[in-house]
Amino acid sequence: MSSTKRPPADSAERGGATIARIAELAGVSTATVSKVVNGRAEVAPETRAQVEAVIREHGYRRQKRANRATLVELVLHELEGAYAMEIIKGVERVAGEHELAVVLTELHGRHTPGRTWIDGVLARKPAGVITVFSAPTPAQQEQLSSREIPFVLVDPTGDPGHEFPSVGTSNWSGGLSATRHLLDLGHRSIAAITGPSHALSSRARLDGYRAALDAAEVPIDPTLIRIGDFNIVDGLTHGRDLLRLDRPPTAVFAFNDAQALGVYQAAHEAGLRIPRDLSVVGFDDLPPAQWAIPALTTVRQPLSDMAAAATDMIISLSRGDALSQHRLMLSTELITRASTAAPRA
Amino acid sequence: MSSTKRPPADSAERGGATIARIAELAGVSTATVSKVVNGRAEVAPETRAQVEAVIREHGYRRQKRANRATLVELVLHELEGAYAMEIIKGVERVAGEHELAVVLTELHGRHTPGRTWIDGVLARKPAGVITVFSAPTPAQQEQLSSREIPFVLVDPTGDPGHEFPSVGTSNWSGGLSATRHLLDLGHRSIAAITGPSHALSSRARLDGYRAALDAAEVPIDPTLIRIGDFNIVDGLTHGRDLLRLDRPPTAVFAFNDAQALGVYQAAHEAGLRIPRDLSVVGFDDLPPAQWAIPALTTVRQPLSDMAAAATDMIISLSRGDALSQHRLMLSTELITRASTAAPRA
Repeated sequence: MSSTKRPPADSAERGGATIARIAELAGVSTATVSKVVNGRAEVAPETRAQVEAVIREHGYRRQKRANRATLVELVLHELEGAYAMEIIKGVERVAGEHELAVVLTELHGRHTPGRTWIDGVLARKPAGVITVFSAPTPAQQEQLSSREIPFVLVDPTGDPGHEFPSVGTSNWSGGLSATRHLLDLGHRSIAAITGPSHALSSRARLDGYRAALDAAEVPIDPTLIRIGDFNIVDGLTHGRDLLRLDRPPTAVFAFNDAQALGVYQAAHEAGLRIPRDLSVVGFDDLPPAQWAIPALTTVRQPLSDMAAAATDMIISLSRGDALSQHRLMLSTELITRASTAAPRA
Repeated sequence: MSSTKRPPADSAERGGATIARIAELAGVSTATVSKVVNGRAEVAPETRAQVEAVIREHGYRRQKRANRATLVELVLHELEGAYAMEIIKGVERVAGEHELAVVLTELHGRHTPGRTWIDGVLARKPAGVITVFSAPTPAQQEQLSSREIPFVLVDPTGDPGHEFPSVGTSNWSGGLSATRHLLDLGHRSIAAITGPSHALSSRARLDGYRAALDAAEVPIDPTLIRIGDFNIVDGLTHGRDLLRLDRPPTAVFAFNDAQALGVYQAAHEAGLRIPRDLSVVGFDDLPPAQWAIPALTTVRQPLSDMAAAATDMIISLSRGDALSQHRLMLSTELITRASTAAPRA
């Protein structure tokens, strides 16, 4: 996980303990240590914990691999919609160029992988692990690091810190430019449908929204800020609610495209036309955005490129190369289409 | 690949040749045979061909695996849109229940995997292979069979024959019921935007369309049948064309949802409203169908269930169990929503 070149395998003081030494320190057989190191199942939990503790303290000097890694692991919080597909395509593209096969794991909405997953990864000995909108637990991170399996976070939910390589996007600027676009059109009552509060990306977009309103000296109206979960139904539900207000907003900034399409639905139900009666801006610019009727104005984040960049980072790290950047931020861009216009007088 | 129980490993006459025997017959070293059997790269093409020929003739008796397979391979012709996502979800669901990780390969629009792929699969020794809208080449099929790696076709493009397990859907009935629905509403000028001509699924839907028209004694108008490639732009292009005819159709049956949404776009451009001015039916019932405005009437094919069923078949086959059915057909269902109505008088 370090950005410097790895020490050669024979560097005793930095290379960590051998399996034999770990076995000695943990008071177990080398076979047991080997099982723990390789994620095999048949070890009692206490024994496993004991061996992991020794590895944490003394490190683990891996035997030279018989075969080069042939897999890269991709972990997605959920397999829903075009977001996940863009990520998969980006990873697949770069992995394919390097003849690596992609192992896909879905967390079914959770944001940390489970025990079965880490055992599988240790057994599969991949070139590396990419987690999207999720992260390994600290214990899993240690297990990966001690086996020299690099990992990279894409679109991290929390602050990854500078110790872990990550690929994100300029969410704050994206939030700012979306809101500024609506202000420039003359809107003063602009609602926001955010992502989940635990997501750093959503928080940054919200701060960008606030910054744009502040700069334009438009007071922030808390009743116009709604917390969503990045699903289309959140856009529909909050959209309905917002349009029923005594003074409904003239524009909605949805923090992802799916929620924006939910707002389309709410507007349709209310007999409102976009953009004549309501302006809508999304975030992501996934393929459905351009095919929405009217085509969606949205903030493009290059998800496929972000995933490709993360895969490149894994490949560099697995070769022991240094990363030129530990924390990569790709830029967002406002794509103006047909869902935004000046508010009706 | 047989539907009967595999012979026990010590059944000499049916179990195939050992590595030593294959080496003898091919006049090469056992190390070379082992490399070919396990998909390793460092074997000259001619030597590889020679060894494969011996395996084809005499079979290959696999050593008992040290470890149970931990992977299942999923091959998709392309990673585009909601179709691919439904398939991935279905495979992932069942694989996860059996603690198998999913290796994903994209063919970038091709319909047979390449050489790198089969080498990788042989090296990874998965529980089995699922190919979607694509199939291994005959040579790859032999390589898989000789290593006892089962494979199942999902939504096969061609006639898989009864020797290969496959999971499909009742495309003909789906085509029939979509067309009958439009006829029942009073439409007599019904266009069809098909899938690619090589795809058996599309051919079956077209035959269902024709059968419904025949039964209603509505003559088939060849100018109303357009060949698409299952992409949204095909729906847009053919939709534009159809709507510019001197006597445009009053309804369009698009052979997948993406093309139906392309027709929405064409109608929007022409200033037509769906369903008042034009009825549209799709095929698939992917998540975007219900969120289209108006919501799309479409033929549901249970893609996620089809993929899950294929994964179940792989798991049975990898255990040496017999399949209850070799060729599974799940049924389609017409989902009537808001995109179809009687033609204007």
